[in-house]
Amino acid sequence: MMDIAVLLRGLDLLGTFVFGLSGGTLAVRRRLDIFGVLVLSVAAAIAGGMVRDVLLGATPPASLEDERYLLVALAAGVTSFLFHPALNRVGKPVMVLDALGLGLFAVTGCQKALAFGLDPVASMALGVLTAVGGGALRDLLVTEVPRVLREEIYALAALIGTAVVVIGDRFGLPEAAVSIAGVVVAFTLRVVSVQRGWSAPRAPGS
Amino acid sequence: MMDIAVLLRGLDLLGTFVFGLSGGTLAVRRRLDIFGVLVLSVAAAIAGGMVRDVLLGATPPASLEDERYLLVALAAGVTSFLFHPALNRVGKPVMVLDALGLGLFAVTGCQKALAFGLDPVASMALGVLTAVGGGALRDLLVTEVPRVLREEIYALAALIGTAVVVIGDRFGLPEAAVSIAGVVVAFTLRVVSVQRGWSAPRAPGS
Amino acid sequence: MMDIAVLLRGLDLLGTFVFGLSGGTLAVRRRLDIFGVLVLSVAAAIAGGMVRDVLLGATPPASLEDERYLLVALAAGVTSFLFHPALNRVGKPVMVLDALGLGLFAVTGCQKALAFGLDPVASMALGVLTAVGGGALRDLLVTEVPRVLREEIYALAALIGTAVVVIGDRFGLPEAAVSIAGVVVAFTLRVVSVQRGWSAPRAPGS
Repeated sequence: MMDIAVLLRGLDLLGTFVFGLSGGTLAVRRRLDIFGVLVLSVAAAIAGGMVRDVLLGATPPASLEDERYLLVALAAGVTSFLFHPALNRVGKPVMVLDALGLGLFAVTGCQKALAFGLDPVASMALGVLTAVGGGALRDLLVTEVPRVLREEIYALAALIGTAVVVIGDRFGLPEAAVSIAGVVVAFTLRVVSVQRGWSAPRAPGS
Repeated sequence: MMDIAVLLRGLDLLGTFVFGLSGGTLAVRRRLDIFGVLVLSVAAAIAGGMVRDVLLGATPPASLEDERYLLVALAAGVTSFLFHPALNRVGKPVMVLDALGLGLFAVTGCQKALAFGLDPVASMALGVLTAVGGGALRDLLVTEVPRVLREEIYALAALIGTAVVVIGDRFGLPEAAVSIAGVVVAFTLRVVSVQRGWSAPRAPGS
Repeated sequence: MMDIAVLLRGLDLLGTFVFGLSGGTLAVRRRLDIFGVLVLSVAAAIAGGMVRDVLLGATPPASLEDERYLLVALAAGVTSFLFHPALNRVGKPVMVLDALGLGLFAVTGCQKALAFGLDPVASMALGVLTAVGGGALRDLLVTEVPRVLREEIYALAALIGTAVVVIGDRFGLPEAAVSIAGVVVAFTLRVVSVQRGWSAPRAPGS
């Protein structure tokens, strides 16, 4: 019981860090100064979880009760500021980090919703919202159309990650294994869909 | 007592559907794929009511406790995706649907606020926010200035719809009749103002 | 005890008015009509405090329980609409008003968070969010990148204002003096940084 709580908190903090990096590297690319980088890191890292906790009535949200969230988000901002050339050399950093944050927040958001007694459909919806909320705010703040609308397999990847959690919960499988499986499925689906250039249909005659 | 609750829930679900259509048809016009259409439908349909419930402390919000909201919003997205040419042929579909959603959400938001014991001014404000919130998020997500700022008689139409509700409540008139009157007034004022091209004053020397 | 509550409410209403003016004058510059001016005034004036209260679980938020907030915000909108040439002649009105609102909301947000038992770091974070939230929404609604990201010393000025509050609270200094000192520090730092053109570092090689 203790272990799964620790694991979920760890996954949530990891998601906070990678979404913070996605915000920070976007801010650097948009040539914002150090304070702008920190604000965008924190917004990307924390907004999704804040929305989740507010909707659950779990106030004050985890990111205000546990100061590690804020410190991790700020550390991600500083890391982006100092090491963005190295981060860029790794590949398409914002995309990969964003995909990892997407999977992590989808799973922890869905697990927290189930723990608060929401039904499976609502828990999946809240997981998806947790996962796409921070990134949507990040993109809106620099007046870009959010990735969740532009990219082919994005909300769907988060949704399938939450489906893994809900199905695992229904069958009573170990939460830790289910959580990790959910993250891996969402992350992999998202990254592979980008690499393969999978496209989803557009409306006929649009 | 039961009847009015059922009526309000029905109006709220109808508002969810038409705002979902307004989000979905906007997404199709912006050439988003099927997943982007669904996300924008759900955002437009559900955000206003979520903000209302969070501000009232009524968490989890109705749209997470009653899965019909999410299903109705998704159905609106699929409808937009499949039938947008027909929807377009009807006329200015986003405007008309948006006007109907505006009236429906203004009335149900105001009624819910009164039921939670807010005073009349605050209830009108919350009704207006419920009505314009989803549409504002819908437009912001595709980086357009929200309709509530661009259009002449928009927040005002919602406000007058809520005034009907508050006055009817004060005089103890039947809630069902008051609700329908509020929706009709807001919707009609909005649509007629567009058709007649009514304009509101701009600041002198602006 | 009574006095400090009255002072904080007064500062909060003053912040509401000046942020309302910042929203209203921006709306006039963007040539919105009277209703658009009122909506942008209210959004800029009230959103930051609403987010603060929702995150604290203090629902309904102060701006819905005390109708003076809404009336003050609307008065700011009408003032902007009627007197914007005079406001413009004073200087860079949006910047100065925005700086004052920034300091006022940072301090009252931080004080309210401390009163709700949040720890110092979280209280500072909530003060900053209260201070930058309304202005961020104001700018996003007209599809501008928010001032908090574009400007050099902005979130930092709010943060230092909250630091004054937290340090004064720790040392048990009189709340009224601490509050006023916090507002003065944040406002002065912000205005001086603009006038002197202070710039913060950008990432190397960005």
